[in-house]
Amino acid sequence: LTRYLEEFQVGESRISHGRTITEADIVLHAGQTGDFYPHHMDAVFCATQPFGQRMAHGTLVLSVGVGLLAGDVNEVALSYGYEKVRFIRPVFIGDTIRSRATVSGIRDNPKNRSESGFLDELVEVINQKDETVLAMSKIYLISKNPNLSSK
Amino acid sequence: LTRYLEEFQVGESRISHGRTITEADIVLHAGQTGDFYPHHMDAVFCATQPFGQRMAHGTLVLSVGVGLLAGDVNEVALSYGYEKVRFIRPVFIGDTIRSRATVSGIRDNPKNRSESGFLDELVEVINQKDETVLAMSKIYLISKNPNLSSK
Amino acid sequence: LTRYLEEFQVGESRISHGRTITEADIVLHAGQTGDFYPHHMDAVFCATQPFGQRMAHGTLVLSVGVGLLAGDVNEVALSYGYEKVRFIRPVFIGDTIRSRATVSGIRDNPKNRSESGFLDELVEVINQKDETVLAMSKIYLISKNPNLSSK
Amino acid sequence: LTRYLEEFQVGESRISHGRTITEADIVLHAGQTGDFYPHHMDAVFCATQPFGQRMAHGTLVLSVGVGLLAGDVNEVALSYGYEKVRFIRPVFIGDTIRSRATVSGIRDNPKNRSESGFLDELVEVINQKDETVLAMSKIYLISKNPNLSSK
Amino acid sequence: LTRYLEEFQVGESRISHGRTITEADIVLHAGQTGDFYPHHMDAVFCATQPFGQRMAHGTLVLSVGVGLLAGDVNEVALSYGYEKVRFIRPVFIGDTIRSRATVSGIRDNPKNRSESGFLDELVEVINQKDETVLAMSKIYLISKNPNLSSK
Amino acid sequence: LTRYLEEFQVGESRISHGRTITEADIVLHAGQTGDFYPHHMDAVFCATQPFGQRMAHGTLVLSVGVGLLAGDVNEVALSYGYEKVRFIRPVFIGDTIRSRATVSGIRDNPKNRSESGFLDELVEVINQKDETVLAMSKIYLISKNPNLSSK
Repeated sequence: LTRYLEEFQVGESRISHGRTITEADIVLHAGQTGDFYPHHMDAVFCATQPFGQRMAHGTLVLSVGVGLLAGDVNEVALSYGYEKVRFIRPVFIGDTIRSRATVSGIRDNPKNRSESGFLDELVEVINQKDETVLAMSKIYLISKNPNLSSK
Repeated sequence: LTRYLEEFQVGESRISHGRTITEADIVLHAGQTGDFYPHHMDAVFCATQPFGQRMAHGTLVLSVGVGLLAGDVNEVALSYGYEKVRFIRPVFIGDTIRSRATVSGIRDNPKNRSESGFLDELVEVINQKDETVLAMSKIYLISKNPNLSSK
Repeated sequence: LTRYLEEFQVGESRISHGRTITEADIVLHAGQTGDFYPHHMDAVFCATQPFGQRMAHGTLVLSVGVGLLAGDVNEVALSYGYEKVRFIRPVFIGDTIRSRATVSGIRDNPKNRSESGFLDELVEVINQKDETVLAMSKIYLISKNPNLSSK
Repeated sequence: LTRYLEEFQVGESRISHGRTITEADIVLHAGQTGDFYPHHMDAVFCATQPFGQRMAHGTLVLSVGVGLLAGDVNEVALSYGYEKVRFIRPVFIGDTIRSRATVSGIRDNPKNRSESGFLDELVEVINQKDETVLAMSKIYLISKNPNLSSK
Repeated sequence: LTRYLEEFQVGESRISHGRTITEADIVLHAGQTGDFYPHHMDAVFCATQPFGQRMAHGTLVLSVGVGLLAGDVNEVALSYGYEKVRFIRPVFIGDTIRSRATVSGIRDNPKNRSESGFLDELVEVINQKDETVLAMSKIYLISKNPNLSSK
Repeated sequence: LTRYLEEFQVGESRISHGRTITEADIVLHAGQTGDFYPHHMDAVFCATQPFGQRMAHGTLVLSVGVGLLAGDVNEVALSYGYEKVRFIRPVFIGDTIRSRATVSGIRDNPKNRSESGFLDELVEVINQKDETVLAMSKIYLISKNPNLSSK
């Protein structure tokens, strides 16, 4: 798939399938990252805390939230970075999340105004109660259509 | 461990052990996130691309980079969010990364100036050539010491 | 172990240990195959469907069902293929399955009548209620005993 | 997505992305199925055999081959079974496979001629040398369009 | 970290964080070891047994129990072996374990009395009811401080 | 399977299939145990050390070594503990290990002389060069045959 910067519009939106975050996901993420903090891994400790139960790692919610939006590859887009990543609510075992992506900005690339530009996508990870658990802005660097020359 | 906001200083730094990113890490991260893009999973495709080989997911580098810094739990600190996450260089199979965290800012919490504040930590993930592959600013919300009253 | 074609009899049967299919198995199978369909991964969606809950992937039931029968290696047998694979009932999280294999046919190998032949094995995967959830015919190509010449 | 039986045509075809089968995939598949046969797990034994190296489990190639084709969910289709599954060539560590699916037949459902029918899809799993490593026929039970009544 | 044999004292003790042993841990350990005994994997069988439910593998409890104590690396210590490993009580899905290590002996190394010695550490793995589930003696070979010559 | 204590003989021996220890096994074991020491995970650090490369965790070698011997369940035997566990040589990525078990002792159970006794099994984990990498004595508590009464 090839989709140039000119083919995106601010406000366009897509939403992913849902995915239930399981105890296995947390165990596997601890195993991948080495983060075995008791907030994620120790049910007895968690029962003594305000949140009352084990919660998913922030990096797990972020990784699955981004992964849920992986669909067709756009060959002329590159993941550049994230801004304003906010862990808004905890995700507990058994919560079901989905991700919504909305184009929130299309900007010039100051280093190369004629060939590419930045696209900002607001990513919201939402739980089964329609609460936002994580929000962030994902930045892509996307080529402009070489056939739409001009400056 | 309890470490209040007043006990941190701008400029203090810590560095993690190293960890070699393996083919297994990429396979497991694809499996956790559902992102099976050919840039990560298809060696034949990658051989035709400028980067020449499979590369780690951005969310894998971020998750391991953050996880490498997981040490003692600070009971009065909370992970609030990230700013300026930048994927600077690809991480390839066999690269060894470590993470350096440097306190870069200590700021008021406008909503609760007397009880807590924000700490900004510059996280740099560095490869075996001492190149930065990912940089970001991690924000913590940390309690102030209630015994150091005053305003 | 060496067991030649002549040593098998139509009707002989073996049954495996049981294995409880867990949420972790489904998460791992999605991760291995890239199949994150909501029928397997989204408990909220599944609750709105006739089957009411997440179900195991067909390829998971098949893979575990075949794996349960892995015992001693027969050095003169080769897995040739499957026929009539049927997904008869869903397998839900917490179901316990076992596999029964029954020799259902012994046939000539038209390409090499004197040295080997085909053995058909009916594989039935059964749940804790003794219901068949998957059935198939597994075909082996097995050497004939060279000391029992003839032909 | 809703796609009724009438909307398919014999001969239509789709092809997946590629995926490199790694040592990690084999280790994980052994772990999921319990099949630790030396043909998959013991490099020293394999070096003494005609094929010379460890090979992927048949059920791994089948599961990944099917998973590679998982795309949009068709809400009116149901996976019914497989026919003529054949393990044609071994898949070795480092081989890159992709899957091609071609509609090969559209048939009546004798039990319910007016509401649904069977669709046969030839699935071919192909390696980086364009050799077919696994072939099979996948059968779907698909609803007919209720608005295209008639009998 | 460098900590010479002379810097340890019999009776000093440390205790780990807790970790809840999950169904996923058992599934992953079966997958890593190939031990799919019904005592660990078959809930229906276990319900007919005195212990009534699936239990963690002994090697899982041992591996996690030892892993929980992994902290700073002591560069002059080497894991030499274990003595008196005893599986005292079963660990069930949902139990939360932690590990306590107590220096129980400091001994000469008969082969090299001047440069190193043995340290015995009593490792006790304890569940949420403060019952010991596994106990063992872990033996380290640790260098003596070369600056504290003598002998 | 039921095999009473009287049916074992000192000196009887069995040997397992081989299994190649992969990078994936080490990554998975670190993930299961939380032990990410650089001796296992950091190829750059290891290259500066006498052993020159990453090595398997002791608990990985022990767990796989024991798992390789898992065969038929003996319903009247119970795993009681281990003695003299010794990590004799490192296991590196790509080494192929197998396990040999030899009955080395049959002893009274002082607490219940008439109904059960202890069986000691010498377990040796051996690499592809026939070097012993781990040795230990595994202790089983096994019922005596109630039909062979006497006291």
